[in-house]
Amino acid sequence: MVDIQSAPDTRNIPLTKVGVKGLEYPIQVLDRVNKIQQTSCRADLSANLPHHFKGTHMSRFVEIFHRHRKDLSMPRFLEMLKEISVELNAESAYGELSFPYFLEKNAPVSGLAGMMSYRCRYQGRVRGTDRHFTVSVSVPVTTVCPCSRAISDRGAHNQRGVVTVELELGPFFWIEDMIDLVEKSASSPVYSILKREDEKFITETAYDNPKFVEDVVRDVYIKIDALKCFPRFSVEAENFESIHNHSAFARAEGGWGSNLKADR
Amino acid sequence: MVDIQSAPDTRNIPLTKVGVKGLEYPIQVLDRVNKIQQTSCRADLSANLPHHFKGTHMSRFVEIFHRHRKDLSMPRFLEMLKEISVELNAESAYGELSFPYFLEKNAPVSGLAGMMSYRCRYQGRVRGTDRHFTVSVSVPVTTVCPCSRAISDRGAHNQRGVVTVELELGPFFWIEDMIDLVEKSASSPVYSILKREDEKFITETAYDNPKFVEDVVRDVYIKIDALKCFPRFSVEAENFESIHNHSAFARAEGGWGSNLKADR
Amino acid sequence: MVDIQSAPDTRNIPLTKVGVKGLEYPIQVLDRVNKIQQTSCRADLSANLPHHFKGTHMSRFVEIFHRHRKDLSMPRFLEMLKEISVELNAESAYGELSFPYFLEKNAPVSGLAGMMSYRCRYQGRVRGTDRHFTVSVSVPVTTVCPCSRAISDRGAHNQRGVVTVELELGPFFWIEDMIDLVEKSASSPVYSILKREDEKFITETAYDNPKFVEDVVRDVYIKIDALKCFPRFSVEAENFESIHNHSAFARAEGGWGSNLKADR
Amino acid sequence: MVDIQSAPDTRNIPLTKVGVKGLEYPIQVLDRVNKIQQTSCRADLSANLPHHFKGTHMSRFVEIFHRHRKDLSMPRFLEMLKEISVELNAESAYGELSFPYFLEKNAPVSGLAGMMSYRCRYQGRVRGTDRHFTVSVSVPVTTVCPCSRAISDRGAHNQRGVVTVELELGPFFWIEDMIDLVEKSASSPVYSILKREDEKFITETAYDNPKFVEDVVRDVYIKIDALKCFPRFSVEAENFESIHNHSAFARAEGGWGSNLKADR
Repeated sequence: MVDIQSAPDTRNIPLTKVGVKGLEYPIQVLDRVNKIQQTSCRADLSANLPHHFKGTHMSRFVEIFHRHRKDLSMPRFLEMLKEISVELNAESAYGELSFPYFLEKNAPVSGLAGMMSYRCRYQGRVRGTDRHFTVSVSVPVTTVCPCSRAISDRGAHNQRGVVTVELELGPFFWIEDMIDLVEKSASSPVYSILKREDEKFITETAYDNPKFVEDVVRDVYIKIDALKCFPRFSVEAENFESIHNHSAFARAEGGWGSNLKADR
Repeated sequence: MVDIQSAPDTRNIPLTKVGVKGLEYPIQVLDRVNKIQQTSCRADLSANLPHHFKGTHMSRFVEIFHRHRKDLSMPRFLEMLKEISVELNAESAYGELSFPYFLEKNAPVSGLAGMMSYRCRYQGRVRGTDRHFTVSVSVPVTTVCPCSRAISDRGAHNQRGVVTVELELGPFFWIEDMIDLVEKSASSPVYSILKREDEKFITETAYDNPKFVEDVVRDVYIKIDALKCFPRFSVEAENFESIHNHSAFARAEGGWGSNLKADR
Repeated sequence: MVDIQSAPDTRNIPLTKVGVKGLEYPIQVLDRVNKIQQTSCRADLSANLPHHFKGTHMSRFVEIFHRHRKDLSMPRFLEMLKEISVELNAESAYGELSFPYFLEKNAPVSGLAGMMSYRCRYQGRVRGTDRHFTVSVSVPVTTVCPCSRAISDRGAHNQRGVVTVELELGPFFWIEDMIDLVEKSASSPVYSILKREDEKFITETAYDNPKFVEDVVRDVYIKIDALKCFPRFSVEAENFESIHNHSAFARAEGGWGSNLKADR
Repeated sequence: MVDIQSAPDTRNIPLTKVGVKGLEYPIQVLDRVNKIQQTSCRADLSANLPHHFKGTHMSRFVEIFHRHRKDLSMPRFLEMLKEISVELNAESAYGELSFPYFLEKNAPVSGLAGMMSYRCRYQGRVRGTDRHFTVSVSVPVTTVCPCSRAISDRGAHNQRGVVTVELELGPFFWIEDMIDLVEKSASSPVYSILKREDEKFITETAYDNPKFVEDVVRDVYIKIDALKCFPRFSVEAENFESIHNHSAFARAEGGWGSNLKADR
């Protein structure tokens, strides 16, 4: 059977990435409490294609991913990309995984347990011995507006927001710790189950702790920066404003040992 | 050229609907202030197919819609469906349009003008002389939680919500009036542009006017019911809870002259 | 602490549904091969609210769902709704779950295994002894256009489509069997991993088996109807047309013992 | 009234971006045939925030955008960003607009006219005298698989795809020309209305012109490169594979005068 993909190409145009996109798959990742967490992902997998080849062999991406689906811890994800680059005879391999990560979380006063879902994303690149890997975690929170609280005789507008931290690794870290760090930087965490005693606690705690998106970003930034272990990172906070039909957002970028701070 | 669609079919299965889905099109609808509003829609158009035909002629739906795109006022929408049923020789024709409707709205104190977007939907069915037409309008609002306000020593959690009213016509009505009716039933409307004096006003107004989703639904219901002109309607309110990562919602169904009230 | 939700309400408007929406949760459902499948869902849970109550207690929906999350087989789902109606002292309880269901599937010639994801949905209602439960399954397929094949000298346009079957239960059935029934009714199933020998097989098989959306719906309908066990069902096929930027779709509704066939 | 946003901040963390996100607005852009096209967008607008300020004044973004909404041609978009940077006393201002752009397009044989929707995006940054502006256009097309055609005795799988071109300006260009360039690089364009004679034409044309995503990207690349006017650009093609439930994609990056070609 002819192999059209392997035919020579004379257009002289190398492709940065060729691969598969939007693959929905059940996967297993590490979980601090339960050791393994079963979840499901959307995966994009690709490799570069030198100018002299007409096409890539798309089925191999899925074959390799299928073999690794039951152990997609952070270090193993990069090994899978390495395998892709070797099997496809490519210089670079790229991967992106997006999945919900679930944690059981207790209400602050009643202690009732409910499951929370946090959106996570792995992004990796392997190029010879060069490896690049970022993990991002999105954490829903609640924020009380400091301006509204200061200028109003009573009440203060507040809303759900989401804080997304993207970290270039660096050492292994637990997603659980990053979620905890973010939740402590907002006006209050959010929960799946709250009784009235919890609702009172959160309302008052958040009112006593008003934060702009700018504040949330800076407070998360300070804590990540203090860990001194991520070469680069970004923090973005988006508020689904309760008084508008659009969002407010803020973003900062940093990194340990980077020259980004020189901008200050 | 053979016409496969018109070939006879012996499976003896009539199809409720056959047609096109997800057609993105620029359209014009009525606007009280500017007479005409240009917007864009997603359209689904279909007709029934009797058991003895193999297929429908999909291109005709788009041809007819194309001719009517510059006048899709409520009454004209039904005329378009009638035309579909005639040209396709079908007993029933169905249509659904979803589009953003834009209004200029002034901030409550500063008077600054900004544009607001409201999601609207037409749903129609023509079957012989029987016509059925519903219009739905989704209005973003802000709601302050009455429970949180009552049990907390300070503050009260609040959030953006969206109220969707679906009305079976009935007489012509202005979308503008329905939006106004809904906005007056929430803790406060939301706006695109707010200065500090507006933010203070909205924060205090909303705090003084706490509402559950249940309250919003009932207050909108009462006002629509009082109009005594919609044979059937539903009201649904969804709050993007600021203390959870999920929504709270409530829904009621009514209608003038309907027997729905007998349930009480 | 005051219980605002339990306060009396004098507006005299009963609410059809009050509850939570968009709850993301890890769940377990039945799996024929592996007995249990871990997946994750979006859940909407609600109950009616009589006219004389001001509000419902939203946290109870999540508490009850949390207890049942590890056994959401079809019969247990209705028991959970019953529990909701009892604990909330409501006449009716409603639930809707949407989740991906994963199956390992072998390529038709090479036999290589890959995972496929099928979108499923439970919808249930419990009202006294009355129970209503529908399951829907969405199956991606490929379809070759019979018209394009008949009128063209070479080739035929084809595309991915999705077939959604919604079944009112009726006896227990395996989701696996319904997927198989649908895949056999299209021009060809789709797969996650295909080698060239598989691609040749699928291309030729599909070309030899051209189907309109109308044909797919009718062929699935006939097979479900022949099972004589679902009181009501619907079949909908949508093609992401390769020659348009919109979809073509068809829909039929039937049911064993129903009077729907009288329309013929 | 206190101005919390203008309060000093001692955390010493500058923010890259602070602003509004997801603003839905009616806008006017240039149209070659009709001079002006009314459409609607989602807008994100932001500016940097120096480390010594606590917050930005979010309402100003919307005020400025509101004033410019009726003339958002490419050059005016950058002027608006300049105005944002001046009014907010910021070094950098950023903007992103996403909107559908509609064109009337005639079927290739019958000549029937239908509207097509193309997703466009402006991304701009103004920093002192430095200006950066990219425009991206997404064009739906159809592609026939060369491998499937070569190895199969009859037929060839094909599908809808979307080609996204992102161009750093460079001189003004017409979106219409870029759409035309892309449509001529696929197996065939797609249309809103097609009669049987058109369907036959497209089926045969596409079958005679099979293209991988890799081919589409390279053929678009060659044509853009030949224009010698865009400092940087990227081309990405994604196929909604008819034989899989995931996509295949390819991407290349180039630019006139850039050193990207050195990689070859």
